[in-house]
Amino acid sequence: MSSAATNDHFWAVIPAGGAGTRLWPLSRAGSPKFLHDLTGTGRSLLQATWDRLTPLTGSRVLVVTGVAHRAAVGEQLPELPSEQLLAEPAPRDSMAAIGWAAAVLEARDPDAVLGSFAADHVIADEDAFRSCVAEAVGAAEQGYVVTIGIEPTYPATGFGYVEMGSPLGDGTVRAVTQFVEKPDRARAEEYLATGRFRWNAGMFVVKATVLLDLLAQWHPELAAGLRSLAADPSRLDEVWPGLEKIAIDHAVAEPAATEGRVAVVPGGFGWDDVGDFGSLGALLSDADGMPGVRVLGDASAVRVVDSTGIVVPGTGRVVALVGLDDVVVVDTPDALLVMSRERAQDVKAVVDALRSEGRTDLL
Amino acid sequence: MSSAATNDHFWAVIPAGGAGTRLWPLSRAGSPKFLHDLTGTGRSLLQATWDRLTPLTGSRVLVVTGVAHRAAVGEQLPELPSEQLLAEPAPRDSMAAIGWAAAVLEARDPDAVLGSFAADHVIADEDAFRSCVAEAVGAAEQGYVVTIGIEPTYPATGFGYVEMGSPLGDGTVRAVTQFVEKPDRARAEEYLATGRFRWNAGMFVVKATVLLDLLAQWHPELAAGLRSLAADPSRLDEVWPGLEKIAIDHAVAEPAATEGRVAVVPGGFGWDDVGDFGSLGALLSDADGMPGVRVLGDASAVRVVDSTGIVVPGTGRVVALVGLDDVVVVDTPDALLVMSRERAQDVKAVVDALRSEGRTDLL
Repeated sequence: MSSAATNDHFWAVIPAGGAGTRLWPLSRAGSPKFLHDLTGTGRSLLQATWDRLTPLTGSRVLVVTGVAHRAAVGEQLPELPSEQLLAEPAPRDSMAAIGWAAAVLEARDPDAVLGSFAADHVIADEDAFRSCVAEAVGAAEQGYVVTIGIEPTYPATGFGYVEMGSPLGDGTVRAVTQFVEKPDRARAEEYLATGRFRWNAGMFVVKATVLLDLLAQWHPELAAGLRSLAADPSRLDEVWPGLEKIAIDHAVAEPAATEGRVAVVPGGFGWDDVGDFGSLGALLSDADGMPGVRVLGDASAVRVVDSTGIVVPGTGRVVALVGLDDVVVVDTPDALLVMSRERAQDVKAVVDALRSEGRTDLL
Repeated sequence: MSSAATNDHFWAVIPAGGAGTRLWPLSRAGSPKFLHDLTGTGRSLLQATWDRLTPLTGSRVLVVTGVAHRAAVGEQLPELPSEQLLAEPAPRDSMAAIGWAAAVLEARDPDAVLGSFAADHVIADEDAFRSCVAEAVGAAEQGYVVTIGIEPTYPATGFGYVEMGSPLGDGTVRAVTQFVEKPDRARAEEYLATGRFRWNAGMFVVKATVLLDLLAQWHPELAAGLRSLAADPSRLDEVWPGLEKIAIDHAVAEPAATEGRVAVVPGGFGWDDVGDFGSLGALLSDADGMPGVRVLGDASAVRVVDSTGIVVPGTGRVVALVGLDDVVVVDTPDALLVMSRERAQDVKAVVDALRSEGRTDLL
């Protein structure tokens, strides 16, 4: 599959969480985004993440998911050994999820390097991605926290950025000057103009021991809790609720960058977090005979008169569009969404309203 | 109910036909427009037609429908005596339908006056309507073919017009100079500017004998066939297929106008033929708390974010609209229509496509 080489100590960690609210009503709390085939390939985003990583890792993969999704994840990844599927009793943000996996790996192999990659992203050029990961593994072995910095294709305001500093060695790896939060549009344009900024896609490659030791500097109780879990998994329900709820970026990546401990591998492999139906549409091709119409599902269910947009026919019914441009239609058995594509972010308002009404059956 | 008086010889004839193609997927061949409650009153258009006429006629009502809809019509109108429900073996246009009813009435009562009113129109001011009908009955008793000319509210290109001539007597009844076909926009504007033109809504009031005698002048075989049917109903399947297929306007109204035999009662009572979802929307009121959104059905199923339009929630599912103006969403168990309201006429293109594919299950 890939020419990239890594070593036998490299493990993939796949945090499989997040509701994908802006993909409602396709993505639900009970059936979140990562369990769906959103690209029409026949593989869910989680399965595609597995397919993308296992050429590097074989079965050295840990998946961390919510207890509610343990069974579904196990069914979608039958090759995943059951002891490599970690089920969180409740969500406690990304540091607990990834740190738990790190502690499990550290106990198993003191030289373990982990690469953490979300279960619900899409990558176009998988060989280029794996080359970046292999290079990141090399830097991680030297003790760095390594992030993969996605080459921005537009001045996005929905992602954080990482600023690249000086090269570290002969490859493409560079020091990280700082992580920055989601910018406004003007700031994002400034970032792009410098050429030094990359999107922070939350991809971290790091030795398990380095990650936990750094965490122990700033959040000693959290590091100790995670290590105690790895030592005695039977204490999960006792330890888990007391763990600090914090993102890995804030807990480790940002302070470590200040100390010069973070490196970045610039990546240009076509990355998308499929954040809403607008970006989902961009991942699909026009349906046969329907220019400007992208269909996720059975295109034979769709009839179009002078219309463009994105259709997700999810019930077997015929979906007919007449005279609408850039419309999003998502047809599911208990909820129908009809939306302007440019308002794709605002589906959240519908979800919020349903939540405030107590319509958890629809969320 | 109404102050209008008519005589015991006056019968209402309700032709209940027409597929309502531009109301697809709500209206279907198997469940056409007139069987639906399109105004949210709890009564179908057919039932509302019954309710509107019976204050004038009591149970002196004949309904003419296709054999496929005989049972549904009977169920919706339990007060209609079964011998007053005429079932056409196949559609043979309006002259055969109304002429059959006229022949049945003529055989029963030589002084019968019939008023023919489609089963799928909506009228706002029913008292005003009944006053017009009562006046039309008076003119019909003098031997005229009387039409009710709807006061135009805009220069419609989708209806034919009737031109009014001199007054006949003291009331509002006037002679008809001519019937004219659907005009183009410029011509329609000219018509309105004269003040002499009214929409032809296909409402005719005429003595049964006068109608059949006039028909016999220009279409003697059709008149004879209809009279033979009335004399011997058992010959229906033998006689019906041989009847000429022609509209009552062409067969009788237009030539009779040329001979000065047609009168018009101008009517201004809020008439609508509910021709498409655009006009359907105009008949509904905004849903509570959703300005600009008209819902036919259960408004509690609809969630709106910055949107206006017409929603027909027909499956119990939640229908969410985000960021769309003047959109039409019609949700039925086997077909979903999402359309720009200004393209409401073009739903016909979807129906045509489905028909050419042989998807009669959806038509």
